[in-house]
Amino acid sequence: MINAYAAHESGGKLVPFEYDPGELKSDEIEIDVTFCGICHSDLSMINNEWGMSQYPLVPGHEVVGTVSQIGSSVKGFEIGQNVGLGWHSGYCNECDYCFSGDNNLCASGQGTIVGRHGGFAEKVRAQARSVITIPDGVDLESAGPLFCGGITVFNPLVQYDVKPTDKVAVIGIGGLGHMALKFLNAWGCKVTALTSSEAKKEEAISMGAHDTINSRDEKEISNAANGFDLIISTVNVTLDWNLYLGTLKPKGRLHFVGAALEPLNIGAFGLIAGQKSISGSPVGSPATIVKMLEFANQHQIRPIIEKYRFEDVNEALARLESGKARYRIVLYR
Amino acid sequence: MINAYAAHESGGKLVPFEYDPGELKSDEIEIDVTFCGICHSDLSMINNEWGMSQYPLVPGHEVVGTVSQIGSSVKGFEIGQNVGLGWHSGYCNECDYCFSGDNNLCASGQGTIVGRHGGFAEKVRAQARSVITIPDGVDLESAGPLFCGGITVFNPLVQYDVKPTDKVAVIGIGGLGHMALKFLNAWGCKVTALTSSEAKKEEAISMGAHDTINSRDEKEISNAANGFDLIISTVNVTLDWNLYLGTLKPKGRLHFVGAALEPLNIGAFGLIAGQKSISGSPVGSPATIVKMLEFANQHQIRPIIEKYRFEDVNEALARLESGKARYRIVLYR
Repeated sequence: MINAYAAHESGGKLVPFEYDPGELKSDEIEIDVTFCGICHSDLSMINNEWGMSQYPLVPGHEVVGTVSQIGSSVKGFEIGQNVGLGWHSGYCNECDYCFSGDNNLCASGQGTIVGRHGGFAEKVRAQARSVITIPDGVDLESAGPLFCGGITVFNPLVQYDVKPTDKVAVIGIGGLGHMALKFLNAWGCKVTALTSSEAKKEEAISMGAHDTINSRDEKEISNAANGFDLIISTVNVTLDWNLYLGTLKPKGRLHFVGAALEPLNIGAFGLIAGQKSISGSPVGSPATIVKMLEFANQHQIRPIIEKYRFEDVNEALARLESGKARYRIVLYR
Repeated sequence: MINAYAAHESGGKLVPFEYDPGELKSDEIEIDVTFCGICHSDLSMINNEWGMSQYPLVPGHEVVGTVSQIGSSVKGFEIGQNVGLGWHSGYCNECDYCFSGDNNLCASGQGTIVGRHGGFAEKVRAQARSVITIPDGVDLESAGPLFCGGITVFNPLVQYDVKPTDKVAVIGIGGLGHMALKFLNAWGCKVTALTSSEAKKEEAISMGAHDTINSRDEKEISNAANGFDLIISTVNVTLDWNLYLGTLKPKGRLHFVGAALEPLNIGAFGLIAGQKSISGSPVGSPATIVKMLEFANQHQIRPIIEKYRFEDVNEALARLESGKARYRIVLYR
């Protein structure tokens, strides 16, 4: 039996919950959970915002732990080694995307907390392909958020071949955005943080931004015209996207990792004139997560976290919902 | 003096018009115009749709002709050689984009019919950098449309590194779309034509499409789900873009070369889930026009044209406006 915390209905509080995981499948690994980050999508799943939640629902998909069981066909893992698990807990491993190393785009990818139980628990299981070895030197306590929020902002740098000579802006300095600043600074880019919070501006500089802009100040934004090769938006609110398009250099890209809830009202002419792109991407593949961990380790990049005990998970979720967390929350035993 | 056809007011008929071009500048070439294609943007400029028309306005920016005068500092041209001129008639040649060979993205790029006189004339002048040598073997009569419509649909294949293994759809089989089909077929791609005209379906196949879809039939479009690496839209009407996003494979791109007049109401989630992009681009650089002409020559790709005499230019413009031209109109002497 596995002891976990589950919501039993949409919007429900998490309560202790025990479930029988059955026999370990031959391609699975069981992880003893040491730490688990809390992601905004845990809240979305608890609240069934995407209509795909199944209850009882055990959230948690930013897992750091140690290998406690290894399936009979799994190779390359040892009992007790440090591993992480993110949004995906399995892939089909047979489609073009899996074979190309783009498992995160697999149409049959299995979400760690979608129709199965996640990491707000003593143990969690996942297909070995989705379980990532954590290199020695990575700070385990703060590593959890790398496995969902971190990879989500790191992935576009790999996917779009971002150059150290690029000028990159990050909209929204929160759980995702603060990690983006750190990665981009280490990547060698000129980094600008866009935030509506005056208080966060100084912090953004300390995280690696070279410059800040008030994301609600049309004039400040307009002054940045023709300034950025890439803008990464981590927010889910509606901004004046055509105004932001104007801050891109020719060939620039406005990239969404935060799902703006309202449609993006984009003028085609604003794309055509300067050969600009708008795009989005979800988490990252195991191959890219490995790259990210090596890069984070080399540059000593750590998410900035607040810690809560697992038994205080409801308090932690309320803190996340308040928007006051600086900058990511991690549960520990 | 140069004899031309000019509109003297917004929406005005073209009438004979004579102007003095002054002394040839040292970096310019004068072209004796043999043929000139008519582009929809000639109509837009006559009608001042973009608010940047100056009258008298001599349209015409799909010029084919011979060199008749060469500025004192120009190298690499000979009197009498065949050349072409497109949307741009000059660049700053000093910005990052010009130096990178992306002159078409130069913020100071000079439009051939913007504040100066174009190719509906006996002669036209332009900065030598924007005048392109036409290789032997290219059919001169039909070459004009390559210099604006042609390069506009060829350019994305170069910019986005389209692979012969890609599956590509073209929305709108008109002046631009029919050339896109021919280029893409020769590029090696699996090509699908999307048109609302049943009559055009067979023609699209003859131009190189391997398959056709009714662009107004939601069911046919939905059936193409996950089918395309790239969609090139040449239309300026509003379609259900989110439906089209669904026909893209993961990492796919919906690319606009036709400026849809209404905002694109794009759901960010449709971009994020499959790492998809939306983009646009304008014409192409001199370097890419050279590539296009070599490729068109090698594969004997010719625009399908209707011919009108220069003196029948108003009739030709009415024909274009009617939407019945198959597929591009060229003026000849």
